[in-house]
Amino acid sequence: MGEEFTVNPYEVKGVVDYDRLIKHFGVEKISSDLLKRLQKYTKLLHPMLRRKVFFAHRDFSWILDEYDKGNKFFLYTGRAPSGSMHIGHALPMLFTKWLQDVFNCDLWLQIDDEEKFLLKPEMTFEQSQEFLQDNLVDIVALGFNPKKTHILIDTQHAGLMYKEACKVAKKLTFSMVRSSFGFTEQTNVGSLFYTSMQAVPAFLPSVIAKKEIPCLIPHAIDQDPHFRLTRDILPKLGHYKPASIQCSFLPPLTGAEGKMSSSSGEQAILLTDTPEAVKKKINKYAFSGGKDTLEEHRKLGGNPDIDVSFQYLKYLFEEDDKKLAKIEGDYRSGKLLSGELKAIAIEKINSFLKEHQKKREKAKKEVGKFIYNP
Amino acid sequence: MGEEFTVNPYEVKGVVDYDRLIKHFGVEKISSDLLKRLQKYTKLLHPMLRRKVFFAHRDFSWILDEYDKGNKFFLYTGRAPSGSMHIGHALPMLFTKWLQDVFNCDLWLQIDDEEKFLLKPEMTFEQSQEFLQDNLVDIVALGFNPKKTHILIDTQHAGLMYKEACKVAKKLTFSMVRSSFGFTEQTNVGSLFYTSMQAVPAFLPSVIAKKEIPCLIPHAIDQDPHFRLTRDILPKLGHYKPASIQCSFLPPLTGAEGKMSSSSGEQAILLTDTPEAVKKKINKYAFSGGKDTLEEHRKLGGNPDIDVSFQYLKYLFEEDDKKLAKIEGDYRSGKLLSGELKAIAIEKINSFLKEHQKKREKAKKEVGKFIYNP
Repeated sequence: MGEEFTVNPYEVKGVVDYDRLIKHFGVEKISSDLLKRLQKYTKLLHPMLRRKVFFAHRDFSWILDEYDKGNKFFLYTGRAPSGSMHIGHALPMLFTKWLQDVFNCDLWLQIDDEEKFLLKPEMTFEQSQEFLQDNLVDIVALGFNPKKTHILIDTQHAGLMYKEACKVAKKLTFSMVRSSFGFTEQTNVGSLFYTSMQAVPAFLPSVIAKKEIPCLIPHAIDQDPHFRLTRDILPKLGHYKPASIQCSFLPPLTGAEGKMSSSSGEQAILLTDTPEAVKKKINKYAFSGGKDTLEEHRKLGGNPDIDVSFQYLKYLFEEDDKKLAKIEGDYRSGKLLSGELKAIAIEKINSFLKEHQKKREKAKKEVGKFIYNP
Repeated sequence: MGEEFTVNPYEVKGVVDYDRLIKHFGVEKISSDLLKRLQKYTKLLHPMLRRKVFFAHRDFSWILDEYDKGNKFFLYTGRAPSGSMHIGHALPMLFTKWLQDVFNCDLWLQIDDEEKFLLKPEMTFEQSQEFLQDNLVDIVALGFNPKKTHILIDTQHAGLMYKEACKVAKKLTFSMVRSSFGFTEQTNVGSLFYTSMQAVPAFLPSVIAKKEIPCLIPHAIDQDPHFRLTRDILPKLGHYKPASIQCSFLPPLTGAEGKMSSSSGEQAILLTDTPEAVKKKINKYAFSGGKDTLEEHRKLGGNPDIDVSFQYLKYLFEEDDKKLAKIEGDYRSGKLLSGELKAIAIEKINSFLKEHQKKREKAKKEVGKFIYNP
């Protein structure tokens, strides 16, 4: 990837150059033509598309071709429970919900509760099970269609998944996974095998339906190495290559390097954070694109491109393009101060979280309906 | 292993020197003291013990110590369906049944229906499923206690096993499995992971019972590399090391090299062979220790140690030590001719198979009772 940044499912480091990443991964940029085509299905494009938060894809045009022919796709996304969910995790999920609503399609949602256990030396299954329950509540609270959403929990659904994973695993050598994920000879065999499990939801619905159904995977771009391997192998098993649509990373509070991570509570805004916690985190930690002094800021203006509060508004919390543009303009001109920008972000985030946390209470009783029951 | 022979779960080649193998694997020879101790539990030792077909072990004395303290063990053995079962497959199973009867203990029987699929490039799951059904009938026909025998089929019981396998897999690196099984960087990740699944039945009953139960694994010695790794890892997971008791290989029809294999029908006597097929196979293919001419044989005698028909009588079909000794003496002296020895073997094998095939018919309806249902 070059010396400046690293992106794979197990490490995101440095300032990511997305144009170089597109070339390196061999994905396609979402073109304005593709966006125009998408508008045929929806009055308004999702802000994450308008703002290029979702910026790349593989075979998304094919998904629409098939859809136009009446061959409807299903969605597949996932979550590895390794901690409380933060707003960065909600990002691709909210976009997935939008796709589900627009295309009225099935969503298969994988909870890979063994992945972090295998990857993280200190992690126990007891911990991942605890996070799992908590994460399921967050996921259900995001509003997926209960009639069309099927959650697969790897350790619980292995009776259905392991055999299919073996079919994938047979086509994957140690060499292949080593180079895709940066593994070594000291990597444990569970981690080496794992990507085979992540491949399964991309074709399991076709196995169950006994006919091929196209699959679209919305995901953060660090997961691409998994699905690149999946795409290589599935045709050899008589299945479609899954298509994907990929987003960039929500920056951590501390700035534009890497991605938001819940391993440090100070780097992330959790979906269960209180209004006070959010206020404190944004005020104390959110990297500012403002100038050092009031005078300088008024004179030279701030830089919204590196300002974390502004980025959160852009990625997630200010859906209105006009309002966002005004904030951006005012900040760039120096009219809007860093503290004022932070106050806007705090208010918008807390308003989202208040709603979400209300939905969480209801979701606690609904989780069971979403778990796939063959 | 030296140049002359190879023994691992995926290859048995050459004339096996069992004394060297004992040293190389680090297992213990079954001593006469241990045999004496075993006689306290049973009137008569099983012929496979008297004749040193079962010749080595790990911690078998500990199993008896625990048993004496009232901490009863369970048995664990397995079968990878990759073809019809032959008399070589029946060997450790029959011994396992004897142990189950003597100690009145539970048996967990693993059907690793993914192992050969992963290992053999040309094998499909459709084939392994076909063999699975057929093999299950043979296994049940061998007479295990239906109340105390629990069959685990890897792909079907993965909902129970995969999570436990991940715990093992986390402690096993690529380097470790490479050196144990002769794998390379081109080995598929399913094969690399597989030994973790084979470890599971050694501790799953303890997980289910929520208390530690000693485990004894009767098996052919080529499986030792799996259980050596299992023994290294299980204590790290808070479980007992499984003990094992190990047998040598039933020779193929063609002679003393390697082991009986069903990949070539001409090398093996199948449990479903007709009397005519057995007669033809023994007469045509069974390697003889007799001399080239009648005169020479009468004068110099035959060599039962390399005579396959004699070995089959010794390993499996002539339980009476006196009768076996007479056959051996007569053959060595030249009194018994090769053709006559073959006729004895044919008669004994066919008498066993006739009984077995009768039991098979009944077993077809009983299989369901043996499949573990949590």
